[in-house]
Amino acid sequence: MSDLNAVLAHVDAHVDDALNRLLELLRIKSISTDPAYAKDCQACADWHAADLKSIGFEASARATPGHPIVVGSKSGGSGTSVLFYGHYDVQPVDPIELWDHDPFEPFVETRVDGTRAIRARGASDDKGQLMTFVEACRSWQAVTGSLPVPVTILLEGEEESGGVNLPGFLKVNAGELKADIGLICDTSMWDAKTPAITTMLRGMYADEIVITAADRDLHSGFYGSAAANPNHILARILADLRDADGRITLPGFYDGVPELPASLREQWAKLNFQASEFLGAVGLSQPAGEKGRSALEMIWARPTCEINGMGGGYQGEGFKTVIPSKASAKISFRLVFDQDPHAIRESFRAFVRQRIPVDCKVEFQEHSAGKAIRFPIDAPAFESARKALTDEWGKEAAYVGGGGSIPVTHQLKTALGMDVILAGFALEDDRIHSPNEKYDLNSFHHGIRSWVRVLDALSRS
Amino acid sequence: MSDLNAVLAHVDAHVDDALNRLLELLRIKSISTDPAYAKDCQACADWHAADLKSIGFEASARATPGHPIVVGSKSGGSGTSVLFYGHYDVQPVDPIELWDHDPFEPFVETRVDGTRAIRARGASDDKGQLMTFVEACRSWQAVTGSLPVPVTILLEGEEESGGVNLPGFLKVNAGELKADIGLICDTSMWDAKTPAITTMLRGMYADEIVITAADRDLHSGFYGSAAANPNHILARILADLRDADGRITLPGFYDGVPELPASLREQWAKLNFQASEFLGAVGLSQPAGEKGRSALEMIWARPTCEINGMGGGYQGEGFKTVIPSKASAKISFRLVFDQDPHAIRESFRAFVRQRIPVDCKVEFQEHSAGKAIRFPIDAPAFESARKALTDEWGKEAAYVGGGGSIPVTHQLKTALGMDVILAGFALEDDRIHSPNEKYDLNSFHHGIRSWVRVLDALSRS
Repeated sequence: MSDLNAVLAHVDAHVDDALNRLLELLRIKSISTDPAYAKDCQACADWHAADLKSIGFEASARATPGHPIVVGSKSGGSGTSVLFYGHYDVQPVDPIELWDHDPFEPFVETRVDGTRAIRARGASDDKGQLMTFVEACRSWQAVTGSLPVPVTILLEGEEESGGVNLPGFLKVNAGELKADIGLICDTSMWDAKTPAITTMLRGMYADEIVITAADRDLHSGFYGSAAANPNHILARILADLRDADGRITLPGFYDGVPELPASLREQWAKLNFQASEFLGAVGLSQPAGEKGRSALEMIWARPTCEINGMGGGYQGEGFKTVIPSKASAKISFRLVFDQDPHAIRESFRAFVRQRIPVDCKVEFQEHSAGKAIRFPIDAPAFESARKALTDEWGKEAAYVGGGGSIPVTHQLKTALGMDVILAGFALEDDRIHSPNEKYDLNSFHHGIRSWVRVLDALSRS
Repeated sequence: MSDLNAVLAHVDAHVDDALNRLLELLRIKSISTDPAYAKDCQACADWHAADLKSIGFEASARATPGHPIVVGSKSGGSGTSVLFYGHYDVQPVDPIELWDHDPFEPFVETRVDGTRAIRARGASDDKGQLMTFVEACRSWQAVTGSLPVPVTILLEGEEESGGVNLPGFLKVNAGELKADIGLICDTSMWDAKTPAITTMLRGMYADEIVITAADRDLHSGFYGSAAANPNHILARILADLRDADGRITLPGFYDGVPELPASLREQWAKLNFQASEFLGAVGLSQPAGEKGRSALEMIWARPTCEINGMGGGYQGEGFKTVIPSKASAKISFRLVFDQDPHAIRESFRAFVRQRIPVDCKVEFQEHSAGKAIRFPIDAPAFESARKALTDEWGKEAAYVGGGGSIPVTHQLKTALGMDVILAGFALEDDRIHSPNEKYDLNSFHHGIRSWVRVLDALSRS
C-alpha cells in the first residue's frame, strides 16, 4: 500500500476520533465580535496550539492587540511548502431563540437517509473546515511520521470581527510565514457532489453610520414633522443607494468593473446554475438586484450594496410615539475586479453627508476595506490540487467565483506574495452565520481525505 | 366682598393645607401599568373618594375589570353643569437612578428666586393638576356652603396604561355622567405667564409592518443582490412616504385637511412662536417637515407621518454580513380635521403592498386609530372660561392646538356628546413621564384660583 492509500485508510479508521476533537472545539464560545467572549477566544487559541503540538508542530498562541493568532509549523518533504490559513472565531448566535439546540453544545443529527451532520455555531465556518486540514496532517504524521511538504498553519481569531490585527501580524512575521502557496478551507463545494476551487473573490467595503438629530428622544405628538427624525433621514439615504434598476448610485462606484470575459461567461454557463433553485431553497423565487444580470453573475462578479443592519427608535412590543435621537445602519459593498475600497468609502461618505440636514450629524465607523482578488488558474499547484479533489470526489472539480470576501486572501497576496488555493467543503445549506449552522459529516470526512491527497499532490508538483 | 373674591381669599389663606393634601396623595404609588401596584391604585381611588366625601360630594370608588374609577357628584347652582375628568394613576418611575429624590416622597424645592416646585411622580401629571379643581370646589364649599354649578368628578386609574375600561364605563354610566360641558386639567400653559385652552387635538393612525423575504437570515456574500433584502424594501417604502417637500405621498392622505381659517392663523401668529427656540431646546435649529408651513402649524394643525421605530438585521457591536429574513417598522400618522383613520389605513397598506416583491410578504398590526377633534371656540362656555383664565393670570388666555392625542376627550364627545374645555397649568419643563417630574407651586396655586373663577363664570353663562 502506498503512503497515500495508507494515510487515507487511517483517516477512515479514525474519523470518529476526529469528530470528537471537533465537537470539543465547537464547545468553546469563541465569538470574536463581543468583548464578553474574550476569554473564550483565548481558550480556543490555546486549544489549537496544544492540539498542533500533539501532532509534532512547533506551535503557540501569539498575543495581538485583539484576540491571539495561532501559528504552528512543521517541516516535511521537499515539495511545495504551504501556509494553511483558518479562523477559530465564530459569528454571534442571535437570534438565539431560533436555534433548535444550544449553539455551543454540538449535536450530531442523523437524517432519514443515514447521513449525519454536526449542528453548532462554527460547525462549518470555520472550525469544521479548518479541522479537515489539521486532521489530514495528523493522519500523515501518524502513518508516515512526517508530512509530505513543509506546513505552516495560521489560525486567526478575528475573521468575523474585522480582522484588524492580521495584516500587521503578517508583515511582522513575513519571514516565518512565507511559503510557496497558501491554502484556505473556508469556501463551499459547487454542490454536494462537485468539489470546487474558488479563484475569484470579491472585496468588501463595510461601514456603519450613526445619525443624530435632537439631543434626546422626543414625543412625536409635540415635535412630529417640525423636528428632524433620524429614521426618515436614514431611510432616504438607504433607499437612494440603489436606483429602480437595482444599480448602485454612488458616483464612481462602477469604475474598474469590466464586463465578464467571454471565456469565463461560457465556463459559468456550463455550470447550469438555476436561479430558481438557488433562491427557492431559501423561500424566494425572483432574483432581486441589477436588472439584466444573471443571479450567478450578481453573486460572483458584480458589486453589491447590502444593508446588513439598521435600527432606530422603539422596536419592542406595542407602540411608543417617539422620535428617536439616533438611527444607525451597517452597510456593506461587495467589490469586484479593480474597484478601490478607499475611493468607494469617500464616495459613500460624501453621498451620506449630502443627505444630512445641517442641524443633524453623522458619524462613521469603517468595519472592513479590501479589494477583490483573482488567481492564475493555469499555475501548476492549482492544477495539482484540482486533480487531487477530482480523484477524491469522483467528479471533476470546478474553478468557481466566490461571492463572499475573504480579506486574508488579499493580505497573503500583498504581504507575502503568495497565491492561494481556496478549497472548501461547505454546502449551501450549511446556514453559516445563521441559527442551526451545520457541517455535513461527509464534508468533514471527505474534506480530510481531500487535504491528504492535496498534500500528496503538492509534494510531487 | 363678592362670593368670588371671598372664595379666592380662602384659596390664598389655605394654600398650604391644599399643598399638604397633594403631598399625601403623591405618596401613594399608583402606577397603573405594573400589576405589583394594584393595591396602591385601589388605595389612591379610596383616598379620592374619602376626600370628595369630606367636601360634600356623594362619591365612591367603582370597581372595573382593571383599576377603580372614582365618581363624585354634588349639586350646585343652576348654571352650566360640568363633568371634570382627571386621572389618579401615574407613569412608572424607571430609570429610578436618574431621580434626585424618592419619586414617592415628594420634595418641595425652593429656587434661588424664591419660587417653589413640588418634585414627585405625578406632581404634574395628573395628581397636581386634578387637585387644582378639587381644591377650587373645596374653597367654594367652605365659603358659600355649596358649589356655583352642578359638578361631577370622574377620576380614572388607567390613563397611563391604555385606559381600556373607560369607554365601557362611560357608556354604562352615561345618564349619571352627562353634563353640559366637560373640563379636563391635563394640558399645559402656553408659557409660564400665559394660560391656554386647547381646542384642537390631533387624531392618530398607528401601524406596524413586518416584511419577510427569505425564510432565514442569509450571508450577504453568497446571496447579496440576488436575494431580496427586506431592509432595502423597508427603506424604500419609508423613504417614499414623504416627498422632497416633506408632503406625505399616500393617495388621498390630505382629503379632509383644509387650510387653517384666517382667524386662527392670525391668532396663532400673535403667540409669537419661535421655531428656533422650540427646536433649539432639543439641540436642533431647522424645521424639518412640510415646506412652506410654520413649525407651529405643523405640530398643531397639519397631519404628520413619523417612523417611531424601525429595525432589521444585525444591530449589535461590530459587523455581521447578514441579509436578514425580516425587517419591521412602527409608523404613526397624526391626523387633523376630518381625516379618516380607516381610509388612511387602507391607503397606507395598499401603498406598502405595492412595494413588496411578489416573493416577499408583509404583515400589519394596527396599534391605534382615532380621528382628530376640535371644539367650537365660539360657544359661550369656552369664551366664559377663557375670560376667567385671562382675569386670573392678567394675560389674555390663548386658544391653542395640541400635538398629542388625549383619547378621553374623544370618548366624552362620542359617548356623552359633550364638548370639553381643556385647561391645564403644566409647564413645558415639568418633565412629565421623566425622572424628577415637578409641578410649580405657582401652577398649583393659580390653577386652583383659575378653576374658582371658571366655576363662577360658568354659573353665569
